[in-house]
Amino acid sequence: MRKHITGFSNPTVKYLRSLRDKKHRKRSGQFLVEGLRLLEDARSTGRLPTTLVMAEGRAAHDLLARLEADVVAAGGEVISTTPDILSKITGKDNAQSVVGVFDEWDTSLAALDRSAAPIWLVAQALRDPGNLGTMLRTGDAVGAGGLILIARWEEFLPWLRGGAKQDGGQLVAASLRDAVPYRGAAYAAPCFILVGNESQGLPEEYEAACDLRVTMPMKGRADSLNAAVAAAVLAYEVLAGLGCD
Amino acid sequence: MRKHITGFSNPTVKYLRSLRDKKHRKRSGQFLVEGLRLLEDARSTGRLPTTLVMAEGRAAHDLLARLEADVVAAGGEVISTTPDILSKITGKDNAQSVVGVFDEWDTSLAALDRSAAPIWLVAQALRDPGNLGTMLRTGDAVGAGGLILIARWEEFLPWLRGGAKQDGGQLVAASLRDAVPYRGAAYAAPCFILVGNESQGLPEEYEAACDLRVTMPMKGRADSLNAAVAAAVLAYEVLAGLGCD
Repeated sequence: MRKHITGFSNPTVKYLRSLRDKKHRKRSGQFLVEGLRLLEDARSTGRLPTTLVMAEGRAAHDLLARLEADVVAAGGEVISTTPDILSKITGKDNAQSVVGVFDEWDTSLAALDRSAAPIWLVAQALRDPGNLGTMLRTGDAVGAGGLILIARWEEFLPWLRGGAKQDGGQLVAASLRDAVPYRGAAYAAPCFILVGNESQGLPEEYEAACDLRVTMPMKGRADSLNAAVAAAVLAYEVLAGLGCD
Repeated sequence: MRKHITGFSNPTVKYLRSLRDKKHRKRSGQFLVEGLRLLEDARSTGRLPTTLVMAEGRAAHDLLARLEADVVAAGGEVISTTPDILSKITGKDNAQSVVGVFDEWDTSLAALDRSAAPIWLVAQALRDPGNLGTMLRTGDAVGAGGLILIARWEEFLPWLRGGAKQDGGQLVAASLRDAVPYRGAAYAAPCFILVGNESQGLPEEYEAACDLRVTMPMKGRADSLNAAVAAAVLAYEVLAGLGCD
């Protein structure tokens, strides 16, 4: 469906603008994605916005045309509006922008198909958003199924151990305790690479629960690597060990 | 030599305080290092301050006592002063602090002994101080001789190629052009791992000058890793390839 909006007080405009607040995102279960590049990334992984908003008079663009067609074909809505109203929605002064509204999707552990990938990254209490971004990029590079941010260990571990499903999974961490050399260790898919907090490392009980503790050469004065670096060095070794490289 | 200073207008106090400014550091060829931990790190790698400054009444500490003795034995100066004056020098309100004055040392390429380590990290136009810190930490972990920040390529390349010395060195970069798999590539010591700028990667002529171009599996949508991550994955592979792990 296509629609044109010209009034600032239009309820749709108000609603879209409200999604800039976490409170409203939480309440509605929807969120905004801005920019053709991100929208195209989402489309190419099978995620379409329920609503697409752009300014009238925007330059034609093949990717955008395809996106529009896909949204309409999926029963979504394409809204054109004035550059001013678009700016009001996004809070930015960019008339070339495109905004999509997405339904949140299920990111619970129960919704994960662990057999979908040989490697998964698992982070416990990461603090630095930079490290998070770096790990997402590394996960992409090694073909990881995803980055699991452990909210509650008491939820993660039973899920990993399969409950009724018994579908397995090897939990691996870099460790100094009771560890084997990371190089050529007996990795098995699906391999869950567990990375600890930047300053504290992994709690002892997390390490104890691992199927495999590996150690990397540390030839200098420091006794650990940057968390995202350790995850990457280990992930590439696992990739090779599983014969997936 | 040991000295006690109690006056704010003492010329030594004024001089030490001036070293907080880049301009004065540059002019004097000296710089300040604050805190026992950093001073101890420096001492343990053979660097002693020419002058050590601490507040009178500071708690006794074995490491500090050893540092003081070493400084005096090396002909340096140990100054005790009031907590107020120390705060004036450091700009911080910490009476437990210790400050050392160091002579700058020669960090030119000509002063490098490349045979001192099997691995060297080389960065071109790194932008992110976080990546720089991560690479230093990685370099420490793999036993790298150092992190070389290329100021001028026209200076680095002739130095690497040995000039009159002909002492060799293999230049390696992660690349998509004309590259072999990074895993098990023919690495040779001293191996110089060249890492490009975060957003631009390496200029083509830099890649062309490499003795070995290697490629890492990139299974996802992105075509590169974070610069510090790429350096680390490669450095650990080189370490194993050289039989140094």
